[in-house]
Amino acid sequence: MREIRVGLAGLGHVGSAAASLLHRTAEGFVRRFGARLTLHAVCDASPAKARGLGLPRGVRVERDWRRLTADPAVDIVVELIGGQDPAKRLVLEAFAAGKDVVTANKALLSRQWPEVVGAAQAAGRRLAFEGSVCAGIPIIGSLARSLAPNGIRQILGILNGTTNFILSRMTCDRCPAGAALREARRLGLAERDPRLDLDGSDSAHKLSVLASVVLGRWLDPARVGRAGIESVGLDDALFAVEELGRTVRLLGLARFEDGPEGPTVEARVCPTLVPLRHPLAAVHDAYNAVMLETSEAKDLMFYGLGAGAGPAASAVVGDLWLLAEARLGGRAAPPLLWAREGRVAVRKPEDCLGRFYLRFQASDRPGVLGRIAQALGRQGVSIAHVHQRSRSGSARTVPVVLVTHAAPEGRVRRAIEAVAGRDGVSRRVALMRLL
Amino acid sequence: MREIRVGLAGLGHVGSAAASLLHRTAEGFVRRFGARLTLHAVCDASPAKARGLGLPRGVRVERDWRRLTADPAVDIVVELIGGQDPAKRLVLEAFAAGKDVVTANKALLSRQWPEVVGAAQAAGRRLAFEGSVCAGIPIIGSLARSLAPNGIRQILGILNGTTNFILSRMTCDRCPAGAALREARRLGLAERDPRLDLDGSDSAHKLSVLASVVLGRWLDPARVGRAGIESVGLDDALFAVEELGRTVRLLGLARFEDGPEGPTVEARVCPTLVPLRHPLAAVHDAYNAVMLETSEAKDLMFYGLGAGAGPAASAVVGDLWLLAEARLGGRAAPPLLWAREGRVAVRKPEDCLGRFYLRFQASDRPGVLGRIAQALGRQGVSIAHVHQRSRSGSARTVPVVLVTHAAPEGRVRRAIEAVAGRDGVSRRVALMRLL
Repeated sequence: MREIRVGLAGLGHVGSAAASLLHRTAEGFVRRFGARLTLHAVCDASPAKARGLGLPRGVRVERDWRRLTADPAVDIVVELIGGQDPAKRLVLEAFAAGKDVVTANKALLSRQWPEVVGAAQAAGRRLAFEGSVCAGIPIIGSLARSLAPNGIRQILGILNGTTNFILSRMTCDRCPAGAALREARRLGLAERDPRLDLDGSDSAHKLSVLASVVLGRWLDPARVGRAGIESVGLDDALFAVEELGRTVRLLGLARFEDGPEGPTVEARVCPTLVPLRHPLAAVHDAYNAVMLETSEAKDLMFYGLGAGAGPAASAVVGDLWLLAEARLGGRAAPPLLWAREGRVAVRKPEDCLGRFYLRFQASDRPGVLGRIAQALGRQGVSIAHVHQRSRSGSARTVPVVLVTHAAPEGRVRRAIEAVAGRDGVSRRVALMRLL
Repeated sequence: MREIRVGLAGLGHVGSAAASLLHRTAEGFVRRFGARLTLHAVCDASPAKARGLGLPRGVRVERDWRRLTADPAVDIVVELIGGQDPAKRLVLEAFAAGKDVVTANKALLSRQWPEVVGAAQAAGRRLAFEGSVCAGIPIIGSLARSLAPNGIRQILGILNGTTNFILSRMTCDRCPAGAALREARRLGLAERDPRLDLDGSDSAHKLSVLASVVLGRWLDPARVGRAGIESVGLDDALFAVEELGRTVRLLGLARFEDGPEGPTVEARVCPTLVPLRHPLAAVHDAYNAVMLETSEAKDLMFYGLGAGAGPAASAVVGDLWLLAEARLGGRAAPPLLWAREGRVAVRKPEDCLGRFYLRFQASDRPGVLGRIAQALGRQGVSIAHVHQRSRSGSARTVPVVLVTHAAPEGRVRRAIEAVAGRDGVSRRVALMRLL
């Protein structure tokens, strides 16, 4: 019976779960493909982690990842070390040695896309990375296979579970942001340093990977417009639900347009007011969801847990089965669909049209609303409605909420700059898009 | 350059859309696989339909499907005729002639699963049928590939767009069922004879196909417990939203348990009260959604349009690309994952536990509620709450609504039989499950 051998680097939560799942599903693989997919070697800077995983006897345990890439018996390398280095060297050396690679490393892929994808292509090897975006949700597999005949016009997604948990607790349970974050930490849903979640960076990395798959070219995450949830207060969350019939979600959006000189992309991550009837409004707690607007299948949504060892291991081992099946076929790898020639034009965030929600805190004195409205008017931004509540109790300021008609983001931001921090208007302004 | 040739039978809405899409994506296929996937011949009882499709020159147009299966140049046959005959003969002859087959025919697959899947396996050929369930939603592809390492514990889905449209209009817009059905017809969402949609048969066929994929064995749709939406009135829909915080959806459910003598399945289609916060409650209008409970990736949901020529063509051409890729690999087909040995035990619907919503219409006279409660009590069914409104205006009867604690469905039905149509209780009783 033929055998495909796996070398797995990185025995953290995901690596341990993947090693275990690979072992538990070995029989299913044999039944399906009439061949064996075996864990040949694992590698971790702390090799002691391999104990207690219940690995089958005969699995080699290494400390140095070079022992995987240098081992001619290894067919597929699984990179679950995370981060940039040595993950990148491992992946590049694996391709150079004729191995296929599975990774779940969104930081590596989003930042080093051209080099990593280029190395796979130069070596004629395969790269699979379902686990790098939304863990066990089969979004990359669907884009690459079932939906391949479709043009993808838009990706719209809740790509970060931590912020979605916080926003859910705010909008559904009237829980303040700080308390919701502490609860997320307690439940193991947030990193010790959650800044990359809160400021939208994690979502931007995932959006970059998804958009790069669709485009076949790199969308540098540095070119993704980015706003986090730090400025979204409980007031905003409750106002949205009660007065606007909307809820707040941190959405990543990539919109693709074909032009004569190649594709143009609009790409951003920002807190967004979603109508309560919209399917993304029903994505609660730490769940993720990705909506696609496609040319043939129309609107699709993929929903599930976007993190966790089990879901990520599902993606990793699913990828392993696919690469193993391809190797068993003895085919040369087809050209990677995510490696096309040419540059991507990215629209500047300030030029992107949208309807906006703005909340100012203002001292309750004559003329403040007038100045805000005037500043928007000077930028050609028209106002759809205004809500100003009267001062309650001992509060020294009142919230002034405005919703605009469609306008370029740059103009709205310039209007804000003209009034924020002056003449009784607070420096901090909550800004959200309407979906 | 190598070429894979397709013979497509059936030029209805889906067949025409698939032929057109295959043609429009020909260049994308070449770019990706370095080979050609071409439409070699089409076939329809009315060959004139081929005109006006903008097919490339050189595509043969046939009236007799046997000319496709007999043509040695055809590698893959696409069956889009629908129904049982001649669709089944076409598929069996195609396998016998060494061709792979794509079909979107849920009626054929759900009723003839053993023969069709057996023929593919006997011939060592591939069968793909993404379009047979929920059109362009890549649910079968995900089950078969990305999620392959998972055990699937439950499928729960909105599998019929017509009934979901009707229920959405009832629950969101207070539109009576009859008017909603007429509107669905006007929008082209309902068949001229919508009985198979309304009574749950269409959903049961789709559930049968999905469950058979998961089990690797046939789940005969005749063994799927089935209730439609005919008995769900506007009163029920509004009561659910206003008093229970739930909405009504027609759900198909298949629950899988492993036992020492093979798998046991609980499978049914019935109107179900879904909590408003649940993701399935946010599936409106003609959209479909399938939730999976999986061993590793946990809860997943796939959402999209479950019907329409474009979405179905997306699935058909997606399947064609996959089968073409496999043929280019020159591999023998791996054993079909949906063809395992052994029988499936199906739990009797009356034994399946659930919480139930019952609405009786009763004349407003003493003792009626007591008799109903007594009948339930005799069956050992305990009542969680009761709502009885007083008579309004000229109405001769009042609705009596009861929600039970968990009980076997058979006992609830026996209690209903004991009181319905007697002593001032209406014959017709609305019965729904709570999710």
